[in-house]
Amino acid sequence: MDSLVQLNVGGTNYMTLQSTLLKFQNSIFPELFDKSTSVDSVTGAKVIFIDRDGNLFRFILEFLRIGRVELPSNFGELQLLKREALYYKLTEMANQVEERSPSCITVGYRGTFAFGRDGLADVKFRKLSRILVSGKVNVCRDVFKDTLNDSRDPDTGFGDRYSSRYFLKHNILEQAFEMLYESGYCMVGACGSGTNSSALEIKPGQDSEENKWQHYNEFVFSRLN
Amino acid sequence: MDSLVQLNVGGTNYMTLQSTLLKFQNSIFPELFDKSTSVDSVTGAKVIFIDRDGNLFRFILEFLRIGRVELPSNFGELQLLKREALYYKLTEMANQVEERSPSCITVGYRGTFAFGRDGLADVKFRKLSRILVSGKVNVCRDVFKDTLNDSRDPDTGFGDRYSSRYFLKHNILEQAFEMLYESGYCMVGACGSGTNSSALEIKPGQDSEENKWQHYNEFVFSRLN
Amino acid sequence: MDSLVQLNVGGTNYMTLQSTLLKFQNSIFPELFDKSTSVDSVTGAKVIFIDRDGNLFRFILEFLRIGRVELPSNFGELQLLKREALYYKLTEMANQVEERSPSCITVGYRGTFAFGRDGLADVKFRKLSRILVSGKVNVCRDVFKDTLNDSRDPDTGFGDRYSSRYFLKHNILEQAFEMLYESGYCMVGACGSGTNSSALEIKPGQDSEENKWQHYNEFVFSRLN
Amino acid sequence: MDSLVQLNVGGTNYMTLQSTLLKFQNSIFPELFDKSTSVDSVTGAKVIFIDRDGNLFRFILEFLRIGRVELPSNFGELQLLKREALYYKLTEMANQVEERSPSCITVGYRGTFAFGRDGLADVKFRKLSRILVSGKVNVCRDVFKDTLNDSRDPDTGFGDRYSSRYFLKHNILEQAFEMLYESGYCMVGACGSGTNSSALEIKPGQDSEENKWQHYNEFVFSRLN
Amino acid sequence: MDSLVQLNVGGTNYMTLQSTLLKFQNSIFPELFDKSTSVDSVTGAKVIFIDRDGNLFRFILEFLRIGRVELPSNFGELQLLKREALYYKLTEMANQVEERSPSCITVGYRGTFAFGRDGLADVKFRKLSRILVSGKVNVCRDVFKDTLNDSRDPDTGFGDRYSSRYFLKHNILEQAFEMLYESGYCMVGACGSGTNSSALEIKPGQDSEENKWQHYNEFVFSRLN
Repeated sequence: MDSLVQLNVGGTNYMTLQSTLLKFQNSIFPELFDKSTSVDSVTGAKVIFIDRDGNLFRFILEFLRIGRVELPSNFGELQLLKREALYYKLTEMANQVEERSPSCITVGYRGTFAFGRDGLADVKFRKLSRILVSGKVNVCRDVFKDTLNDSRDPDTGFGDRYSSRYFLKHNILEQAFEMLYESGYCMVGACGSGTNSSALEIKPGQDSEENKWQHYNEFVFSRLN
Repeated sequence: MDSLVQLNVGGTNYMTLQSTLLKFQNSIFPELFDKSTSVDSVTGAKVIFIDRDGNLFRFILEFLRIGRVELPSNFGELQLLKREALYYKLTEMANQVEERSPSCITVGYRGTFAFGRDGLADVKFRKLSRILVSGKVNVCRDVFKDTLNDSRDPDTGFGDRYSSRYFLKHNILEQAFEMLYESGYCMVGACGSGTNSSALEIKPGQDSEENKWQHYNEFVFSRLN
Repeated sequence: MDSLVQLNVGGTNYMTLQSTLLKFQNSIFPELFDKSTSVDSVTGAKVIFIDRDGNLFRFILEFLRIGRVELPSNFGELQLLKREALYYKLTEMANQVEERSPSCITVGYRGTFAFGRDGLADVKFRKLSRILVSGKVNVCRDVFKDTLNDSRDPDTGFGDRYSSRYFLKHNILEQAFEMLYESGYCMVGACGSGTNSSALEIKPGQDSEENKWQHYNEFVFSRLN
Repeated sequence: MDSLVQLNVGGTNYMTLQSTLLKFQNSIFPELFDKSTSVDSVTGAKVIFIDRDGNLFRFILEFLRIGRVELPSNFGELQLLKREALYYKLTEMANQVEERSPSCITVGYRGTFAFGRDGLADVKFRKLSRILVSGKVNVCRDVFKDTLNDSRDPDTGFGDRYSSRYFLKHNILEQAFEMLYESGYCMVGACGSGTNSSALEIKPGQDSEENKWQHYNEFVFSRLN
Repeated sequence: MDSLVQLNVGGTNYMTLQSTLLKFQNSIFPELFDKSTSVDSVTGAKVIFIDRDGNLFRFILEFLRIGRVELPSNFGELQLLKREALYYKLTEMANQVEERSPSCITVGYRGTFAFGRDGLADVKFRKLSRILVSGKVNVCRDVFKDTLNDSRDPDTGFGDRYSSRYFLKHNILEQAFEMLYESGYCMVGACGSGTNSSALEIKPGQDSEENKWQHYNEFVFSRLN
C-alpha cells in the first residue's frame, strides 16, 4: 500500500505519497527516506526534515509527481531552482530547468493606413505591409509554427541560431501576439517611429496621405522560463 | 445533513462540504471520498489526502462550489490549471480553461490638436479622428458591445476570425480603455509616431499647425485568461 | 462581553469579534452564527465553517470591521470580490465594489525646450505649453481638484460623462503624476511623437531650434479599483 | 525578564517581546496588554486578540521593533497602512507614512550620435547634450545629491516646490537611473521623439548626419512610498 | 549528531539544523542558541524566538545554508535585507547585499530595413547598423562577456566607471536581450525615434527607401539586485 510521507522543508510542510518520493532512484530522496525514523504521532506518516528553502520545494515536489518541470509564467527564480534540483540530485530536472533559459522575440511591422480612392473619410484602417519576426530559430518555429515564413532564411539550421529575416504568412498582428502569450511570452516593451519621406518624393499615382502616415512599431516579448 | 470534509492537497489544507465535493459525479472526488477512511480526531471530519499541488487547488475547489472558472486578472498559470482540471477529471472545467486562452486587442488613434481660428493660444485640445480597434471578432464584440462599429467588416462571422477594420462609434479614448479593463484586459504596450507631411503639402485653407501635430498612437491590451 | 468567533473559510482561518460579525443584520452572518454549535476546545470560541474562497474573505472581514471597501492598489479580483459580497448578502459592500470599476485618465503635453536668446548652450530646459487631461468628468475633478481647469467644458455635468478638453492650471508634469498616484492610479503606458514642421514654415522672429524640438508625449494611467 | 507575547491579528499569528509591544506608551498596546487574561497553554505566553487585518500588521510590528517605517519597494497599500497606524494610535508612524506619499521624477535627454570627421563608419556612439531632471525640489536633491546642478533654479527653496530646470553635472544616463533605483524609484514609462530639422537648416561646417539623428527621450520614474 | 532547531521569527516558523545555525561564529546565532532553554514538546527540538520580521528571515536562513546571497529576480527589499543581515551580525552577507545594488544597462540600435535592388517587395528585413551598449564597465563586461567590443573605451578601467562607447560584436538584438535576462535584468522601458533626413540629402546611388525608414530604438534594462 502507498503510505503518506510528511516533508518538513526548512519549516514548511508538504505531504506526498511514498511512491512519488521514491520515483527517482538517483535522487537523494530514497536515502533520506531510509534514514528517517521520525513518525507523526497523529497521522502515523513518516516525517522527513530537509534543511533547504521551503518555498522552492513546491516545484521540486511537482517534478516528482509529473516528471516534467512546469512553472508559472514569468517565474523569476530559475537560477535558484536549478541549484535546488542539483542539490536533490534530480539531474533530469536540472537539465529541464537549464533548457528553460529566458528567451526574447521581437515582432515589428511597417504600416500605414488605407485611404479610400474617392477620399471617403471613413474608409481608413490599419494597413500592415508585413509582420517581421526576429529571435532564436527553433524558438520562433515553436511559437509561430506554420504561420512562420522562414523561406528567406532556410539554412539557419536548428538550435541556438538566430534569424531576423522571418516574417509571418499573415498580417494579423493580434494573432501573432496571442500565439506569443499562449507560449508563455509577455510583452515587455513597445516603441514606434515614423518615416521621414518628404513630399518631394511622392511619385505620380502615389497616395501622399498613405505615404506620410508610414511608421514602424516594434514589440519586444520575453519569456522568463 | 451536510458534513465537512478536510482536504490535504500536497500539504496544504482546505475544507469544504461533502455536497460540494461530490457535485461532479464523473470527477475523481466521489471515488476519493468513498476510499478515504481517515477522520480528523478533533473535528470529526473525513480527511482526504491528494498528492497534487496545493496552490492551484484553490481554483479547483472554487469551480466545485460555483460551477464556473473564475480567475484573478492576469492569472499566469492557465496551462498548469488545465492540467490539474484534467487530473481531477473535471472535463467541464478543463473546457472552460481551454476557452480562456490569452487574447490581445489593439486600440489606436490618429489624432492631432484643435487650434482656434482666431489663434487663441488657449483653445487647444486633443482631437481624435477615429479610434481603431483590431483583434478577434467575437472578443472585440464582447468587449465594446454596441460602441463597436463593425459595418466595414460585416462578413467576418464569429469565432476565431480577426478583423483590423473595426472602429468605435465614439471618440472617447478613456472610455475604450475602461471597457477593456472592465473585461479583464491590461495595457501591455504603447507606442507613438508622428507623420511626415511637409509644409509643401498644406493646401489653402488648411490649418498648418493642426497638420504638423498629426500622430498615430497605438495601445496594446492583453488578457491572460 | 464581546466574545471571539473563529471562521474557517474554505480551510483558511480568521478570527473576529462577535459584534463585528453581526454588524450587518441583513447579511448571512447572523444566521450562520445562530446555527453554529461547534466550539474550539482550546479557545472556547464559536467556530463557523463557510464553504467559500479563503483568500477573498480577508476583504469581506475588513468591510465588516470598518464599513468601507478598502483595497490594495491594483487589486485584480474586483469581479470575484463583488460575487463574494453578494453571496454574503452584503449589499452595501457589493455596491461599493460596483462603484470601484477600473478608470483611466490620459495626461499629455505639447512641449519643446527653451533656448537662450544669446545662444548660450547651457540655458535649455523643458518647456511645456500645457498639460492636457482626458477622462471621466467626476474622476478628473476628484483627482486634480482645484488644479483642474474645466472652464472649456463647463457643461459636461457630473457622473459618467467624459471630457477631453480639460487642462491643468499649472505646467508641472510631476505634480500631475503624483496626484494621480496619490489617488491610486498607476502609469500603464507612455508614448511620444515629434512634429513635422519644416524649416520652410519658420516665421521671422521665431526660434527655429525651439520649433524643431516640438513633441507630444502622452501618458496613460489606470486604477483597477 | 522580557517575556513573549502572542498576537492573534484577525486570525494571523505574530509573536513579539513584551518590551517591543509596550515601547510606545501612547499606542493602544499597553492597554490591550493589561486587559488580556488569555495565556497559551503550551508556551505560557500571553495571547492578545486584535480584530484587525492580519497582513498589514507585519508593518505595524516592524515599526514597534525599529521605530521607523520601512517598506518594500512599490508597496501598494500606503493609505491602508496609515489607517492602521492611526487605529493603533501610533501617531509617529502615521506621520512617517504620511510623508511617504508617491513621488515622480522625470529624466530626459536630448541626444544624437557622434560621427567621425573622417567618416569612419565604426566611430559612432551615443552623444547626450544634457540630462534634464524634473520633480520636487527636495526629492531631486535627495536622490541626485551633488550630481544635481540646481544653479539655474537656486531660489526654489525646499519642501514641496517643483523645478523643471535641473540638470545633472554628468552625462551618464545609467548612473542617473541607478541613483533613482537606489532611492526606491522604478521606471514606469519611457517615450521618445525625433526632431524635425530639415536639410535646409544645415549650416556650413555642421554635421548633417549628427543633426538628423537628434532625438528627445524621456523616462518617468515613480516611488510608491 | 546534527539536531534540529526550530526558529520562531516574529511568529513565522522555520526549521534548520544546529550545524547550519552555528556556521557563522561571529553572528548572533551561537549566543541565541546557548541562551535558549525552550524545547518543543512534540519534536524535542530546541526552540529559539527572534523578535524580527518573519518574511525576510527566509533569505537569512538561506545564506546560513549556502553561504551566498541568492535572491529572486526583482527582489524589492534589498535595503530591508541589509538591515536584517547587520542585525544578525552576518557581516559577509551584508557586504554581499551591499554589492548587489540596482544596476541599469541601456541597449540601443540604429536601424532601418533592407530593400532589394531589384525592388522585389518581399525582400525586406530589419537591418541593424550596430547595437550600442551603455552602463557600468564591469557590469557590461559581466553580462555580455566576449560579445562586447570595448576597444573604443579600453582605458575605462574596472569597478564603478561607466562607458557609453561599447557596442556588440554581433547585430542580433534578441541575443543581447537574452543575455541580459540571463543575468537577472528586466526590460523596464523602450522608446523609439525616427530620423529627419529629407529627400534633399539623398546622394546618387543611395537607397531613398532605406534612408527614410531610419530609426533609433532604445531599451532600458534594470536589475534590482
